[in-house]
Amino acid sequence: MIQERPFDILSKSSGKQVLIRLKGGVYIRGTLTSFDAHMNVVVESAEELDDGELKAKLGTILLRGGNIIYVSPA
Amino acid sequence: MIQERPFDILSKSSGKQVLIRLKGGVYIRGTLTSFDAHMNVVVESAEELDDGELKAKLGTILLRGGNIIYVSPA
Amino acid sequence: MIQERPFDILSKSSGKQVLIRLKGGVYIRGTLTSFDAHMNVVVESAEELDDGELKAKLGTILLRGGNIIYVSPA
Amino acid sequence: MIQERPFDILSKSSGKQVLIRLKGGVYIRGTLTSFDAHMNVVVESAEELDDGELKAKLGTILLRGGNIIYVSPA
Amino acid sequence: MIQERPFDILSKSSGKQVLIRLKGGVYIRGTLTSFDAHMNVVVESAEELDDGELKAKLGTILLRGGNIIYVSPA
Amino acid sequence: MIQERPFDILSKSSGKQVLIRLKGGVYIRGTLTSFDAHMNVVVESAEELDDGELKAKLGTILLRGGNIIYVSPA
Amino acid sequence: MIQERPFDILSKSSGKQVLIRLKGGVYIRGTLTSFDAHMNVVVESAEELDDGELKAKLGTILLRGGNIIYVSPA
Repeated sequence: MIQERPFDILSKSSGKQVLIRLKGGVYIRGTLTSFDAHMNVVVESAEELDDGELKAKLGTILLRGGNIIYVSPA
Repeated sequence: MIQERPFDILSKSSGKQVLIRLKGGVYIRGTLTSFDAHMNVVVESAEELDDGELKAKLGTILLRGGNIIYVSPA
Repeated sequence: MIQERPFDILSKSSGKQVLIRLKGGVYIRGTLTSFDAHMNVVVESAEELDDGELKAKLGTILLRGGNIIYVSPA
Repeated sequence: MIQERPFDILSKSSGKQVLIRLKGGVYIRGTLTSFDAHMNVVVESAEELDDGELKAKLGTILLRGGNIIYVSPA
Repeated sequence: MIQERPFDILSKSSGKQVLIRLKGGVYIRGTLTSFDAHMNVVVESAEELDDGELKAKLGTILLRGGNIIYVSPA
Repeated sequence: MIQERPFDILSKSSGKQVLIRLKGGVYIRGTLTSFDAHMNVVVESAEELDDGELKAKLGTILLRGGNIIYVSPA
Repeated sequence: MIQERPFDILSKSSGKQVLIRLKGGVYIRGTLTSFDAHMNVVVESAEELDDGELKAKLGTILLRGGNIIYVSPA
């Protein structure tokens, strides 16, 4: 088995739809376009979700990695 | 695809309107004029918003990066 | 006695089922596929549990190590 | 456009009135007299405000940067 | 008096029963089998306790040091 | 104007009465006798205050800098 | 005046009774036997107090420095 590194999943998800859960119960859904070693990410066509319902259309956002609980390729 | 870095969005937003969400439910809207590697930012003509409503006009503010959840070009 | 290091348990659990408890009462169950020195982990076939009940099927997720309370091989 | 750095606003505000918002809803108003790279600041003639009302006169205080949300020149 | 270092107590407790208090009122009891400089620990036959009562049998767990309040040899 | 550094106020307050506000609404009043670069401080004849009222006489205490909101020379 | 360093109080308190306040309102009383640069400490004959009342006898404990608010020689 070739061991991947966790951030490989961010490389593979670039340009694709992801769901991101933040601390405090906020979810962001959109297209991952860039990330860095601190897990700071840029998401385009970002939507903020509350219990699965659309709360706000945010366009492009820069999310600080420190508030991210998980990133999931959609 | 040329991979951008997340902070490129801050460079591109300099001198433009941004919406910033802070921890604790505070939103700041205004013109981004500078930032550093810790995501400390200066926002001019800054307004504090509470649930989309104007709460206070703050003028120029220096925001600590550590409290930022996201920055979104308006 | 040969002293192991704590992260050895992650190496041994790679490709296997784990239960992960996060801050804020969230549990994730799934297959551990990679990890790094910050305890960032990728879990495949991830399920989010609430009090032992399935809350959401998440597929593959990248979990930030900083929010993990414990990882337990199932 | 010459890009300033965020802390330039602290240099420019030295000796002047500032409003500082801290985590936990505390506001401090007074004269900024010094700061360092961690955003630790000294404020003279400092007043603690609660919802815009004067809560306490503190004289000179050393504020830890880590608790600061924003600094705003008055 | 020969001054010991705090982590010596972890070395001496390896292979023995410990009680660990985590942030958020969670207690873990079990056999300490490894630790590192961040106080990350592996506990075998781990049990989660709530107010002294057994809440869950966890088997082997890797606990992040950052959430530990104290470790006490039983 | 000669720019002082914030910690100069701690040097000048050594041996004098200070009021220290901690996270979580705790106030400590007493004589500052030492400090270091992390803002860890020793306070002698320390008293814990709650809403301005004496809650406990603590004698000498070592306070972790990380919990300090501000230090104010009395 | 010879300026002491804050941790000198830990050296002087080794082998003696201390009262330690932790985040979250937990108090520990016992004999300080070792400490390190992170303020991690070992306390023997440790007792957990709640509002001054004995809540639990803990024996020897290793306390993480990060949760300590203050250490006070008794």
